[in-house]
Amino acid sequence: MPPKKPLILVTNDDGVFAPGIRVLIKVMRTIGNVVVVAPDKPQSGMGHAITVGVPVRLQKIKSEKNYKEYACNGTPVDCVKIAKDIIIKGNPDLLVSGINHGSNASVNIIYSGTMSAAIEGSMENIPSIGFSLTDMSYHADFSHTEKYIAQITKTVLKNKLPDGICLNVNFPPKSKKKLNGLAVCRQARAYWKEKFDARTDPHGRNYYWLTGVYENLDAGKDTDEWALKHNYVSIVPVQFDLTAHKTLLTIKNWNFDEK
Amino acid sequence: MPPKKPLILVTNDDGVFAPGIRVLIKVMRTIGNVVVVAPDKPQSGMGHAITVGVPVRLQKIKSEKNYKEYACNGTPVDCVKIAKDIIIKGNPDLLVSGINHGSNASVNIIYSGTMSAAIEGSMENIPSIGFSLTDMSYHADFSHTEKYIAQITKTVLKNKLPDGICLNVNFPPKSKKKLNGLAVCRQARAYWKEKFDARTDPHGRNYYWLTGVYENLDAGKDTDEWALKHNYVSIVPVQFDLTAHKTLLTIKNWNFDEK
Repeated sequence: MPPKKPLILVTNDDGVFAPGIRVLIKVMRTIGNVVVVAPDKPQSGMGHAITVGVPVRLQKIKSEKNYKEYACNGTPVDCVKIAKDIIIKGNPDLLVSGINHGSNASVNIIYSGTMSAAIEGSMENIPSIGFSLTDMSYHADFSHTEKYIAQITKTVLKNKLPDGICLNVNFPPKSKKKLNGLAVCRQARAYWKEKFDARTDPHGRNYYWLTGVYENLDAGKDTDEWALKHNYVSIVPVQFDLTAHKTLLTIKNWNFDEK
Repeated sequence: MPPKKPLILVTNDDGVFAPGIRVLIKVMRTIGNVVVVAPDKPQSGMGHAITVGVPVRLQKIKSEKNYKEYACNGTPVDCVKIAKDIIIKGNPDLLVSGINHGSNASVNIIYSGTMSAAIEGSMENIPSIGFSLTDMSYHADFSHTEKYIAQITKTVLKNKLPDGICLNVNFPPKSKKKLNGLAVCRQARAYWKEKFDARTDPHGRNYYWLTGVYENLDAGKDTDEWALKHNYVSIVPVQFDLTAHKTLLTIKNWNFDEK
């Protein structure tokens, strides 16, 4: 009897019809049985949002042997939760999210619906990986990512991940240069210096477009930003324990009663 | 000349008209000059979402000496960004978020708009504190929190916080028992076991309400959940570097080429 194929849950934040998730589905179908539950519309920048004030709906798009696909009106994190509870009725063997159109390296992870879906998976002890391409274009070329995605996925299925840890994998944009391989690294210290573009609407009211400049404050060669800049695929292991353990010891010594 | 009063930015995720933020504003006005920029409607569960597809708007509600108040149609993180760029035109001396109606202890921090606003502040190197009450009621009694909020705020203004660190402060619900004081602790390992409540609408289509049971998997006495259960105010220092540094070393030794 051939070994049982792993059950793989696929989601993203660009929506179920985005080209990036289509590439990810194609690769996953060569590895396991696949359930797709992804947002019915773009949900970029949704972070770890969940839907609490309105109900969540599912639309079945496809149902074939070893393949099911649903669109969901909720956020990426909603998709993970409803896939588990309503579709799979338990944990899949693996969760993959992406391929995101745009980088989720460094602090971008914090705003990313794609990575929040992977983090949600790790909160449920599902081995989870988020994949992103540092090219925001709808028509981005994902062809150089496929081989590495298959490799990383198979390695995670084999080695598992520690409880509560997922992977944040980012790819440099497609170029003529061959990728230099994989780099396991840490999240760079960077931030978005926001700059609102102020305008006036036809009714005389002000409105503001959120724009920003990305500033990398981190010169470390062990970071995801360094790896991407030098044409490596960056892999950052991610945790959801946000405790700043070092600072905890400092603050324990503060005198809060002081006037 | 009296010392210059600190400029304090106040926001939340329950919306500018929620009772919790009113208590926080009252306490902050005894300490500094206050700018409020908070969502114009409830934004609970928004996590670190930002608004990218539609413009952000501001409505001035009040403008007095040393006090300004705005409602914003965006998320809590949008509020922090637009307050900095359009209203304050720089960093405030302190950012406080809350008082949230409901706990943000343990993993609740990940879903919380209130805490995401504080984390956004720390990403911009603003000393930032999120305050939450473990009582979701609109009519919750916040009176026992005021003294401690003033104490913690003054201590942070005096000691500052390390770059990239904010505080997650949670209060037990009001009871007849006096609070036992402050406990600096770590984020407990817990999760929400989701359970969707499936229903059918009048048009015959299924829909699902997200519900869940909170499960604390962590018996540690050094956690926020332990502190709250034992009637302490919990203070967890929070970082946004999500790198799982220990796991990083393990994964560096994986053979990704292996078939």
